[in-house]
Amino acid sequence: MTDYRTLRVALLGAGAVGSQVADLLLKHGDELADRAGAKLELAGIAVRNLDGKRDADLPRELFTTDAETLIVGSDIVIELMGGIEPARTQVLHAIASGADVVTANKALLATHGSEVFEAADQVGAEVYYEAAAAGAIPIIRPLRDSLAGDRVVRIMGIVNGTTNYILDRMDTEGADFADVLAQAQELGYAEADPTADVEGYDAAQKAAILASLAFHTTVPLDAVHREGITSVDAAMIESARHAGYVIKLLAVCERLTADDGSESISVRVYPALVERTHPLASVHGANNAVFVQAEAAGDLMFYGAGAGGVQTASAVLGDVVSAARRHIAGGVGVGESTRANLPAVPIGHVITRYQITLEVDDQPGVLATVAGILSEGRVSIATVEQTVIEASVGAAASTGSATEAEGSTIGAGSARLVIGTHKAREQDLSETVERLAASGVVERVVSVLRVEGN
Amino acid sequence: MTDYRTLRVALLGAGAVGSQVADLLLKHGDELADRAGAKLELAGIAVRNLDGKRDADLPRELFTTDAETLIVGSDIVIELMGGIEPARTQVLHAIASGADVVTANKALLATHGSEVFEAADQVGAEVYYEAAAAGAIPIIRPLRDSLAGDRVVRIMGIVNGTTNYILDRMDTEGADFADVLAQAQELGYAEADPTADVEGYDAAQKAAILASLAFHTTVPLDAVHREGITSVDAAMIESARHAGYVIKLLAVCERLTADDGSESISVRVYPALVERTHPLASVHGANNAVFVQAEAAGDLMFYGAGAGGVQTASAVLGDVVSAARRHIAGGVGVGESTRANLPAVPIGHVITRYQITLEVDDQPGVLATVAGILSEGRVSIATVEQTVIEASVGAAASTGSATEAEGSTIGAGSARLVIGTHKAREQDLSETVERLAASGVVERVVSVLRVEGN
Repeated sequence: MTDYRTLRVALLGAGAVGSQVADLLLKHGDELADRAGAKLELAGIAVRNLDGKRDADLPRELFTTDAETLIVGSDIVIELMGGIEPARTQVLHAIASGADVVTANKALLATHGSEVFEAADQVGAEVYYEAAAAGAIPIIRPLRDSLAGDRVVRIMGIVNGTTNYILDRMDTEGADFADVLAQAQELGYAEADPTADVEGYDAAQKAAILASLAFHTTVPLDAVHREGITSVDAAMIESARHAGYVIKLLAVCERLTADDGSESISVRVYPALVERTHPLASVHGANNAVFVQAEAAGDLMFYGAGAGGVQTASAVLGDVVSAARRHIAGGVGVGESTRANLPAVPIGHVITRYQITLEVDDQPGVLATVAGILSEGRVSIATVEQTVIEASVGAAASTGSATEAEGSTIGAGSARLVIGTHKAREQDLSETVERLAASGVVERVVSVLRVEGN
Repeated sequence: MTDYRTLRVALLGAGAVGSQVADLLLKHGDELADRAGAKLELAGIAVRNLDGKRDADLPRELFTTDAETLIVGSDIVIELMGGIEPARTQVLHAIASGADVVTANKALLATHGSEVFEAADQVGAEVYYEAAAAGAIPIIRPLRDSLAGDRVVRIMGIVNGTTNYILDRMDTEGADFADVLAQAQELGYAEADPTADVEGYDAAQKAAILASLAFHTTVPLDAVHREGITSVDAAMIESARHAGYVIKLLAVCERLTADDGSESISVRVYPALVERTHPLASVHGANNAVFVQAEAAGDLMFYGAGAGGVQTASAVLGDVVSAARRHIAGGVGVGESTRANLPAVPIGHVITRYQITLEVDDQPGVLATVAGILSEGRVSIATVEQTVIEASVGAAASTGSATEAEGSTIGAGSARLVIGTHKAREQDLSETVERLAASGVVERVVSVLRVEGN
């Protein structure tokens, strides 16, 4: 074997990902050395509890509770503790000690990314985080490097496996949210406390990271509009299917250009309608995918496992090899490219299409009233479908074109109106929906969903 | 604007890709400078003919026929001439002059890659080639960097847009190869001389590049088994559809492990049957996709435009920004990782599944004879379907399970046997097919196709 220089690697955390990283580092040491051009010596694994249960059988003597000391003298520090503290302190300590950092910590990067990257910049260190945005899917390097000569226009990502699993099961089985969530928890696809996933917090952190990279701009987490999937029910899924859509929790990162040429960005996470023919519609189970539209490259899609211990370990080890190559090659870290400084707009400025589902009085003139309110609110109607849900005569619900339904309906029951809009401004849309709700002819606003995918 | 250091960029070639690269470099100069941390000055464009027609409106004073002089003093040389010479000489000249090289030249890299990479290694230069393997799709960095800590087991790539366009049209329209090819030529999807595409030469070059990266091994072009799509006809496509498959020209790069643990690789390009539920089956038109299976990361797919001037220019400019960042950061090139040195096996050693279509005498005992020959040849049958194609009694062709058909057929017409095999060794398979052809009961071997996708 070639006589390589040895690099000292410190691992912080030995959870699902950490123990796989340690296992693979030990098992494939020679092969990794050949690729990195350096021997990667696992100097130690810092954990909170020495007697914790691990997913892999690892040498006991590697474990320590003293992360601080382990970090000193390390060339590469792998941070897989998760959470903000003590991860933040240890990462800054590692950078100050002269180490490169590899992390999968999306919470840390989404909230303290600037602090971490600036600290690294100042000492010429590098921070690698391929595992932080979409698990095993290589998306950081494509955005940061491969597309660095292009202009990303839009990203639509399925970046949370738990919610995609839940929505996919709801779609294929017609099951309700609560039932599928309970099953997902049993199978280990969802945490006992599923808030971070189902309320979109996890996806919002990843959206902030992806948008920062894609638009070369620091995107703070609180600039990300976030809605979860807890309000999605079986009826909405069925209605989406009927209209040729599937509901996906999307992270949308978009470049907006004003009439005067000035640019801004919008970053948002919400359940959205995606056409069934769109590549994202066929992302099933707990898989992730990131769909990228760039001015020159056109449409690209990156697909794979978004989570999982060993899958995520693959991304972490790729970063470790990159860090090692850089140590051997010399040179300072290139840092993050954030010089574009594009402002993030509030959700009200977003322009997209919508599907509005209303329960209305089934009386003559109702559609005209609804259409009038939409038109006043600068929301243009693309499609309408009216369904009688409680006909005064006859038992079965019947569907017809809107004008037919309006002309032929006499009774005093309820009807369901599903309105597809052309592109509208979110603020116009939400004000219009409020006016609809208060109009007297609308019994209930059943749902308002964005339609994404152009 | 920040006061950046200026890097001198030389462009060789102003064809479809080259003129777009020049145009974008000039148009987005400030933005690219912010990303690269350096001003990218297009010093000149070397062409054969100063009066050639260009796809973009470029300043006349940039053009020169003297590539040699343009290269000297350049920091980054972009080679987009294509072909082996004079590209090879100019690339080596650029490296010797101290420049980093960005190239989209798959022919050069597949045939003289080692020479180019070694020359770069010796002077600490770097060679970037994101555009050489799958156009705009970022696949080089994911394989080289993101998956550097993992073990790639297999790649299945649709890496030639022309052949995918032809096969997709044949599949959706039931059209014949020659007709679709003629249309593709009219529409500009195929060259006047389509040999490089339809005979698989282009895909074979890309397969060599992908396999070299994925397996950290130098894969010479002549180690790639290559078959084109000219023998694929409408009947084969229809028969594939009937069995739940679609025919795709695949570049397959596979890691093989022998019983004693020793490893080798197989790299091959041929039209193969892919199940219609496989992600690769939904890659339509001239699009490309690379499906990667890795030990830890699992299944990944990268999808996008595989060709096109402006799309490919995106990948080239990403490399230019990377090269510029490296110039600013300092440090030597990290070179290619080829230390695994895995031998490439001949096609005969490949193990995969097959679909064999035979025309046989429609007589009792024929299936038994065929099955016997397969069994002797160590080819195990998974499925059989027999169709009477010239019944001695009755007009319409009838399909039945094999045993039924064999038992009930009396006449002296012909039958079609479609045999799906379990995994078999290619050499066993081809010897068996030869024995079948010579057996007396087989009138014609209609087709033998590999089935890929596990």
